[in-house]
Amino acid sequence: MRDQWFFEKTIPEILDESRTSIKIKKKIYSGKSSYQKIEVFDTLVFGRMLVLDRVVQLSQIDEFIYHEMLVHLAMFSHQNPKKVLIIGGGDGGALREVLKHPIEEACVVDIDKKVIEISKKYLPFVSKGAFKNKRAKIFIEDGIKFTKKYKNFFDIIILDSTDPSGLSIGFFHGKFYQDVSRALAENGVLIIQSGCIFEQFLRVKSIYNKLKKIFFEVKIHQACIPSLQCSSEYIFILALKSVSQKPNYKNIKQRYKKLNLDLEYYNPEIHFSSAVLPKYLAKKLNVNT
Amino acid sequence: MRDQWFFEKTIPEILDESRTSIKIKKKIYSGKSSYQKIEVFDTLVFGRMLVLDRVVQLSQIDEFIYHEMLVHLAMFSHQNPKKVLIIGGGDGGALREVLKHPIEEACVVDIDKKVIEISKKYLPFVSKGAFKNKRAKIFIEDGIKFTKKYKNFFDIIILDSTDPSGLSIGFFHGKFYQDVSRALAENGVLIIQSGCIFEQFLRVKSIYNKLKKIFFEVKIHQACIPSLQCSSEYIFILALKSVSQKPNYKNIKQRYKKLNLDLEYYNPEIHFSSAVLPKYLAKKLNVNT
Repeated sequence: MRDQWFFEKTIPEILDESRTSIKIKKKIYSGKSSYQKIEVFDTLVFGRMLVLDRVVQLSQIDEFIYHEMLVHLAMFSHQNPKKVLIIGGGDGGALREVLKHPIEEACVVDIDKKVIEISKKYLPFVSKGAFKNKRAKIFIEDGIKFTKKYKNFFDIIILDSTDPSGLSIGFFHGKFYQDVSRALAENGVLIIQSGCIFEQFLRVKSIYNKLKKIFFEVKIHQACIPSLQCSSEYIFILALKSVSQKPNYKNIKQRYKKLNLDLEYYNPEIHFSSAVLPKYLAKKLNVNT
Repeated sequence: MRDQWFFEKTIPEILDESRTSIKIKKKIYSGKSSYQKIEVFDTLVFGRMLVLDRVVQLSQIDEFIYHEMLVHLAMFSHQNPKKVLIIGGGDGGALREVLKHPIEEACVVDIDKKVIEISKKYLPFVSKGAFKNKRAKIFIEDGIKFTKKYKNFFDIIILDSTDPSGLSIGFFHGKFYQDVSRALAENGVLIIQSGCIFEQFLRVKSIYNKLKKIFFEVKIHQACIPSLQCSSEYIFILALKSVSQKPNYKNIKQRYKKLNLDLEYYNPEIHFSSAVLPKYLAKKLNVNT
């Protein structure tokens, strides 16, 4: 039998000039929901992977880097988060990390029920039972419509969507970020998975500029995530709604020690070191350093 | 005409299970030296690239990240570097960065004359005339034999070799690091390009452990370099020969301001943030954080 290889769908930004391919050990699932193609397969290099519309969403070996950075950068930027909204995140990884904190409730809003079902069945190591937690509320709805219903409510909003395409293009519009800001409580914090700094620079810049117009402070954080389709830093953009909760190292360190979470990637030093930008990037993004 | 794609030689560590390929716009040069196959081609994504034995050595778009980190992490870890040795580095990029400092002399020792010739001819944007500088001395010799000839001489030794293979395998032996330590002056600093933390973890760990036995302090620094064959952080290992010159932020910041170098990636904040390790890596490498 011939080897089977997975070729990731090319990022439009780089015009099919560079490709990553990964040898498939075993196809676990392949199907279609009303919204997208869903695939799960095992690989030797990255373990089990979830792929939506031919784009890698997560892999077993390094999803902890993505989910810890996405969640804890935001959670530790708030003094006392109680109400959390995760938009997207149907795999349950962000929910798993959020529930490590002493929060009251975490809402997951994903439009695609099938992603949640497939993730529970074939990727149980991601959610680790989080969907059954009493503090978790799952909504099968459009995240944009859901967000519009709230005002001054959530302490944290985590945007864990797919890349901008038909299904999620609205998550990258300034109009949506205004709705998010309104849905956040006074000291609310937003975090957005924003793609790769090299291949998707224009997207990162666009999100950053839109948020700067709406939020009090906007910070770019980075982490390397081997299995995601990018050859450089993966970007998380963190936005604070108001001035009073701006985090400092000492405060984060204290709360991190007190909470004693079981983490493998995020720590208070990473919180700050991940936001240090080289000069060329600061210039390109027009960020003051 | 069919598109031409460059498939990088697979890293032995990942067993041909994952591949990166880059579309070639134009082949500029292809030939063989006594030691290796040398290729230069233009790509749309990464600009002009230098490839040795099917492994990407540098590309136009991001070589500044590699060369600035390799050189300035070491140069700013020494109070007053005057004599510098670059082992490998036939493309001239490390030399270009070293010469930005007020040093007395920089020796480049590369066994392959042809790499220097091809780099001068087809990649002039890398050396930028550095080979003609009066403070530069070029030796076409085996770096291991060259290093053995010196004792307490160099302030900085920069190991800018190819990956461990026939030609450069000796650069990854503990015996060589002992010779390097002897060739360094009292407060000497060594830096080694050490590969990628994900794909080449065992190599990184091996270099780290060998250096720990010989040097006073060993630090792992990281940077993302899009065009290099790795999907995660690229590692530079920095080793200090003695206790007295351990750099601190204030001191580096002062000298950085005074020297006013023309840099795009390295800065004093990056010097320290690039050395912050996530917990899982510190554990795997047995590093105290």
